[in-house]
Amino acid sequence: MTSRLITPLIMAGGAGTRLWPLSRDSMPKQFITLLDDGLSTFQATLLRVKGDGFANPIVVTNNEFRFVVAEQMRAVGVVGDIVLEPERRDSAPAIAIGALLVSQKDEKGLCLALAADHVIPDVEAFRRDCGRAASLAADGPIMTFGIVPTEPATGYGYIEPGKPLKSEGANTVARFVEKPDAATARGYVEQGFLWNSGNFIFSAERMLAELEAFVPEVLSGATRALAAATKDLDFLRLDPKGFAEATKVSIDYAVMEKTRHAGVLRATFGWSDVGSWDSLQAIRPQDEGGNVLEGPVVAIGTRNSLIRSDEILTAVIGLDDAVVVTTRDAVLVTTKARAAEVKGLVERLKKEGRREATEHLRMYRPWGWYQRIDLGGRFQVKRINVKPGGLLSLQKHFHRAEHWVVVSGTAEVTLDGTVSYIHENESIYLPIGCTHRLANPGKIPLELIEVQVGSYTGEDDIIRIEDIYARA
Amino acid sequence: MTSRLITPLIMAGGAGTRLWPLSRDSMPKQFITLLDDGLSTFQATLLRVKGDGFANPIVVTNNEFRFVVAEQMRAVGVVGDIVLEPERRDSAPAIAIGALLVSQKDEKGLCLALAADHVIPDVEAFRRDCGRAASLAADGPIMTFGIVPTEPATGYGYIEPGKPLKSEGANTVARFVEKPDAATARGYVEQGFLWNSGNFIFSAERMLAELEAFVPEVLSGATRALAAATKDLDFLRLDPKGFAEATKVSIDYAVMEKTRHAGVLRATFGWSDVGSWDSLQAIRPQDEGGNVLEGPVVAIGTRNSLIRSDEILTAVIGLDDAVVVTTRDAVLVTTKARAAEVKGLVERLKKEGRREATEHLRMYRPWGWYQRIDLGGRFQVKRINVKPGGLLSLQKHFHRAEHWVVVSGTAEVTLDGTVSYIHENESIYLPIGCTHRLANPGKIPLELIEVQVGSYTGEDDIIRIEDIYARA
Repeated sequence: MTSRLITPLIMAGGAGTRLWPLSRDSMPKQFITLLDDGLSTFQATLLRVKGDGFANPIVVTNNEFRFVVAEQMRAVGVVGDIVLEPERRDSAPAIAIGALLVSQKDEKGLCLALAADHVIPDVEAFRRDCGRAASLAADGPIMTFGIVPTEPATGYGYIEPGKPLKSEGANTVARFVEKPDAATARGYVEQGFLWNSGNFIFSAERMLAELEAFVPEVLSGATRALAAATKDLDFLRLDPKGFAEATKVSIDYAVMEKTRHAGVLRATFGWSDVGSWDSLQAIRPQDEGGNVLEGPVVAIGTRNSLIRSDEILTAVIGLDDAVVVTTRDAVLVTTKARAAEVKGLVERLKKEGRREATEHLRMYRPWGWYQRIDLGGRFQVKRINVKPGGLLSLQKHFHRAEHWVVVSGTAEVTLDGTVSYIHENESIYLPIGCTHRLANPGKIPLELIEVQVGSYTGEDDIIRIEDIYARA
Repeated sequence: MTSRLITPLIMAGGAGTRLWPLSRDSMPKQFITLLDDGLSTFQATLLRVKGDGFANPIVVTNNEFRFVVAEQMRAVGVVGDIVLEPERRDSAPAIAIGALLVSQKDEKGLCLALAADHVIPDVEAFRRDCGRAASLAADGPIMTFGIVPTEPATGYGYIEPGKPLKSEGANTVARFVEKPDAATARGYVEQGFLWNSGNFIFSAERMLAELEAFVPEVLSGATRALAAATKDLDFLRLDPKGFAEATKVSIDYAVMEKTRHAGVLRATFGWSDVGSWDSLQAIRPQDEGGNVLEGPVVAIGTRNSLIRSDEILTAVIGLDDAVVVTTRDAVLVTTKARAAEVKGLVERLKKEGRREATEHLRMYRPWGWYQRIDLGGRFQVKRINVKPGGLLSLQKHFHRAEHWVVVSGTAEVTLDGTVSYIHENESIYLPIGCTHRLANPGKIPLELIEVQVGSYTGEDDIIRIEDIYARA
């Protein structure tokens, strides 16, 4: 193994909808607890590359997710750089940014580009493979992790291994092929092709050279975006003008399918991209009927199904190969065979303007979260949870008054300039038009029930006068 | 047609679970709006026999449902007697009570015994058939309505018509047969048997004579229960001791299968007992894919299915003959073929002590309703709706304080003997241990949000000091 530390580059800006209604634009798959380890796949990815041969990670994400990224990193005790993309430009620009950042410290530095939403249960095998791939990458090729197919899947690209490299299970890449049809996929599996997992190890020098050779505008755009980047709180905000010059293109298409310097390591770890509900069902522990049952669910005469509920009792009778996912504001019922159509469903719901297509009921904010619990003609009720030290913006509303009842912790409330402390089982009234601010000065979470009364209770009736999170 | 008015006897005490999660013990099928007419089947039944040849109805129900019965009758402008059974004793004792009440006014009086949970879309045809059956019943036989089978159903008893009576489509009953297996059912349909709808017209004199002949203990128990009945508000509460002496038995078994005085009229109206989700699907308007879609639901590549949601967005992809029913606290997913197993599911949920098996989230009370909207470790939030004139009991709690925020209407609050008026967008605090009482003195519904804070927020932490609804 090389003595250089490997810098993980974690790409956490995606907005997957194929696990709707759990995954939505407002909180996509990589930030959700999918398994029973209490971690999001983003957090599991962070921990998979923590310490012992790895440098602090670079996380590339976008503006919307900056607070959840920071909070989830803090929660698992990982320190790293958070880079904000001004817009989604696919993987090549993100990898260019990563390669440039690594190169600033060490031009031969090694970088491990990882998706934030993959599941790899065997961490030890993964780290072992990373070490071996790093040794090879230090000498030259961009190393990819090839997954030994468990079935002739049509949802992945394949890699045809070429000549052996100087490590067991490592080869040059003869070619990358796009997602095949079923018959072609069977042929690929017979010929020993591997799945392209989309995770890479490379030296900064090599990647920058290949970008320069094949997509120079991606590299120049990324270079300018980084040169003109600004610090915003703890975030590195890339320059939008420079970043817009970097072509929107995947690293596979931009570099991997063209370079002569590609290698593939046959991974010894199990892997899933959890790309749809059926793939989640496949990797979870199943009961004797082949069912994966999670949450308050009951299955009668049901086999090989995934039934999952956050909170609402969900009963299934007499279905095979079904997928049933219940959340507090949306229910999905389909079959494993048709789970891929969820993406199209979400597109349709977005077109119809359904809030549930994109937003969760619980909305995360830098200071904590809120969740609507009731809505009537002229009122709305929310549960608000403020982290210790959390401070909401100084704000006012034109159309609603608010009643706050503290049910746990202590609130510091600033009302038209006067500060008071509201304890558990106390309440305060905020008339229409007053300026007010809520903070949690205490050591435990502050929970309160907010009853809004007025002619309009939409989220956009808010004037932010001042905000420590730079949202004013 | 006879010149006598027909007294409807509406049996509304059942606790069907086969339409769970919509129908639950706390609010069973007959009181729920199943169709899009905005009426419960109980209300539709009341309206079907209102005026023009019909006397005011007698409604037989039990203690639990007395307020919902009274409220639903009031809502459709029907006045009648409400008789409360001390316990469920099947149909024979209820019909004995009805026959006795009719007989008190006119021993030859006619009585029409109806289930409260059947669907009969063609009211005119139904009333015409009632008139014809009444003419025949006045002379002698207990007339049943026989339904022309639309399929060889195994879920109903059948009637073999005997000799013609003096009205078109009317015959004596050759025999009643129990629910058959599929092969037998096909034979019955070929031979012209009719479904037993369980609705009857009879003269009080005839029914009392047959009860006396075949089940004298039912008649004597019912007679004693009525003689010792008490008035409670607007309800006639049968004497429990007398009623317990009436055997628990169906009128079919007690009388119809034995009497020589039974007739059957071939009904000209369409009929469904809505006995399970598949039968509801069958009677509702279907789209071009054969789907019945109700509420915020989306169906893609789905046929011949019933998808129904109160409030939560429910999406179904790629299922045929499915039943998906979403409520705010429970979801059912099954197939039409297995819809009958819902009954067993509910039994299992009851054994497991799941609240959702028996109770709705919205609980109806004589003064209005309440619904839990949030629940935390040391708090609970409810939405409370009080009808104009509604008055809750004078009460106190040992473990919780309450904050009331009025969001609509005006509340009259009595707090430790002092009365105050709380208007929209005002609130009041009720400390632990205070005596308090809530009333709606106004003309529009009073809506308020109640935030309970305390170490225990269970429903049973309530001392009722005084209650106009006699629940103290």
